[in-house]
Amino acid sequence: MIVVREAIRKMEGYVPGEQPQEEGYIKLNTNENPYPPSPRVVARLMEFLSRSSLALYPQPLSDRVRKKLEQVYGIPREWVMVGNGSDELLNLVFRVFAGRGDTVAYPFPTYTLYRTLAFLQEATPWEIPFPDDFSLPVDFVSARANLKVLCNPNSPTGTCVPLEAVEQLLSASACPVLLDEAYVDFASQSALSLLGRFANLLVARTLSKSFSLAGLRVGFLFAHPDILREVLKAKDSYNVSTLSQVGAEAALEEIGYAMENVEKIKRTRSWFAQAMEEMGFFVYPSQANFVLVRKRGENLAFLYEELKKRKVLVRYFREWPDALRITIGTDEQMEILLRNLREIVKG
Amino acid sequence: MIVVREAIRKMEGYVPGEQPQEEGYIKLNTNENPYPPSPRVVARLMEFLSRSSLALYPQPLSDRVRKKLEQVYGIPREWVMVGNGSDELLNLVFRVFAGRGDTVAYPFPTYTLYRTLAFLQEATPWEIPFPDDFSLPVDFVSARANLKVLCNPNSPTGTCVPLEAVEQLLSASACPVLLDEAYVDFASQSALSLLGRFANLLVARTLSKSFSLAGLRVGFLFAHPDILREVLKAKDSYNVSTLSQVGAEAALEEIGYAMENVEKIKRTRSWFAQAMEEMGFFVYPSQANFVLVRKRGENLAFLYEELKKRKVLVRYFREWPDALRITIGTDEQMEILLRNLREIVKG
Repeated sequence: MIVVREAIRKMEGYVPGEQPQEEGYIKLNTNENPYPPSPRVVARLMEFLSRSSLALYPQPLSDRVRKKLEQVYGIPREWVMVGNGSDELLNLVFRVFAGRGDTVAYPFPTYTLYRTLAFLQEATPWEIPFPDDFSLPVDFVSARANLKVLCNPNSPTGTCVPLEAVEQLLSASACPVLLDEAYVDFASQSALSLLGRFANLLVARTLSKSFSLAGLRVGFLFAHPDILREVLKAKDSYNVSTLSQVGAEAALEEIGYAMENVEKIKRTRSWFAQAMEEMGFFVYPSQANFVLVRKRGENLAFLYEELKKRKVLVRYFREWPDALRITIGTDEQMEILLRNLREIVKG
Repeated sequence: MIVVREAIRKMEGYVPGEQPQEEGYIKLNTNENPYPPSPRVVARLMEFLSRSSLALYPQPLSDRVRKKLEQVYGIPREWVMVGNGSDELLNLVFRVFAGRGDTVAYPFPTYTLYRTLAFLQEATPWEIPFPDDFSLPVDFVSARANLKVLCNPNSPTGTCVPLEAVEQLLSASACPVLLDEAYVDFASQSALSLLGRFANLLVARTLSKSFSLAGLRVGFLFAHPDILREVLKAKDSYNVSTLSQVGAEAALEEIGYAMENVEKIKRTRSWFAQAMEEMGFFVYPSQANFVLVRKRGENLAFLYEELKKRKVLVRYFREWPDALRITIGTDEQMEILLRNLREIVKG
């Protein structure tokens, strides 16, 4: 009998949202962007394929992407590393800062991957409940841990704690603080501006949401070079494929295009949230590309199931049965969702 | 001051071979394939880009690639997982089977990444010297460890232990045995055929070498479904990009094309090894797409340096200074290398 590490054997893996292979679904369950990436990203990839070979290894440190990040965000390239999606970067940060018996603190509910990543390290996840208004928990600010993680805007709530609270957290924490800013382009503020001031700040970003490139698998980690030097030790040598690097570089040049889509999504979010409230749902104030809607005390599994039958996928969490997380799609998609919802509720 | 885990702080990261960004090098240092991938791989990628969006997440388990692997290798898809290069898969296997204080045994010298992966887990690497003929060390077969790794064919020597020795190793080992078969298509045998018979066997493969797709980052791990179930827990949800999955699927359909290139490389290897012997080098018998050449007791750093000045890159290992590892390129590339070598030796 093969002996797997006990920590692994005991844990469950993280289960990502459904990725149906059949066509025809309106997919509002994993916070993808309903708009395609800039056509120039695709054009650049095609051009690369027509003149270059994939026989060579990619750049180990994604130098051209980091150069572009420096131009776009004004942060020197020594302060950023590129990952195979921000998931890889979160994973690496846990490996570097949280060993067996260490504690990783984060407000809860949030992205449940953090729990999986802690278990993988035999570290203890310390899940500190958000207050009802989803402001930053006081206990989290004062917690003594080996690593703190804050998803901001938070998933699955879409809520966002203000920059002043983040500053408090950074000041009060002796440990590294990882800000998962996957959804930040849909919010009104980012902690990137705090980078130079707090040596314990790490900010993770992704091209999966605002840049419409979930299929490309590219994320960024911003932090002090002394921190990145350690995180890089845990990275696979060639962690980002050549095509992902080419696509990322092009996408960053087309940030204007992405931000136009962000504005469209924010407008859709605004009217859709109102429509859901009018249907009697509580809608958490969202600064992300999704909303969490709730009917306190009701199990919304049937809504999820009925919508799925009608080819509309939203996210249902067994551990939070009176809520649904709904990605913001196009206006048309949200209208179809609403029409179906009304039919189900009537029926 | 930010506290990095002691194990990480103390270790050095793995340093991959040089990836020069200037054009014009003959690159014989990181065992890439000198021939481009099948044009149909490129065509399929272009076609995909022209009709599909990258806005959606990829398949978490690379289902279509696994289906194709089943067709090509005749191994049921439950017995294989797909990774972001085989490096990711090696990394995951270490995470699942080797925790703090555990022992990972492997013959040495070999791919030095294994040492890095053990350190990352705070496991102890147990490096068991190969005998002079690079047959399987008896001590390795009988070793009691939590994980055993065998690179076969081995890097940097190119030597390969026969299948019978691998069977002995599997029979004698209570722990999982990871066969790193990155170079196996250049050899005359593979342990894939042993899969059904030994529940402790894991075989890692890659598209980087024989399939000319180092830039795509795709590897495969074959093992019993009970083992894979555990390894999958440690995997990032979306570890292989959409384009990498599309390219991998097309490449597997074009295995005939890849194997023609393999035959060309084997022919080049044969005459090149002889030419190096005629120049007075000892050449280890290679079943890989590279050869290790040696001049016992001489420091070959100057050869590496002089070749680099002449735009020919080979691999020099500081810890093995009287040897050079030379990737097999095209006939033309090897002739240029030989011409330069002769000039340097004369000069």
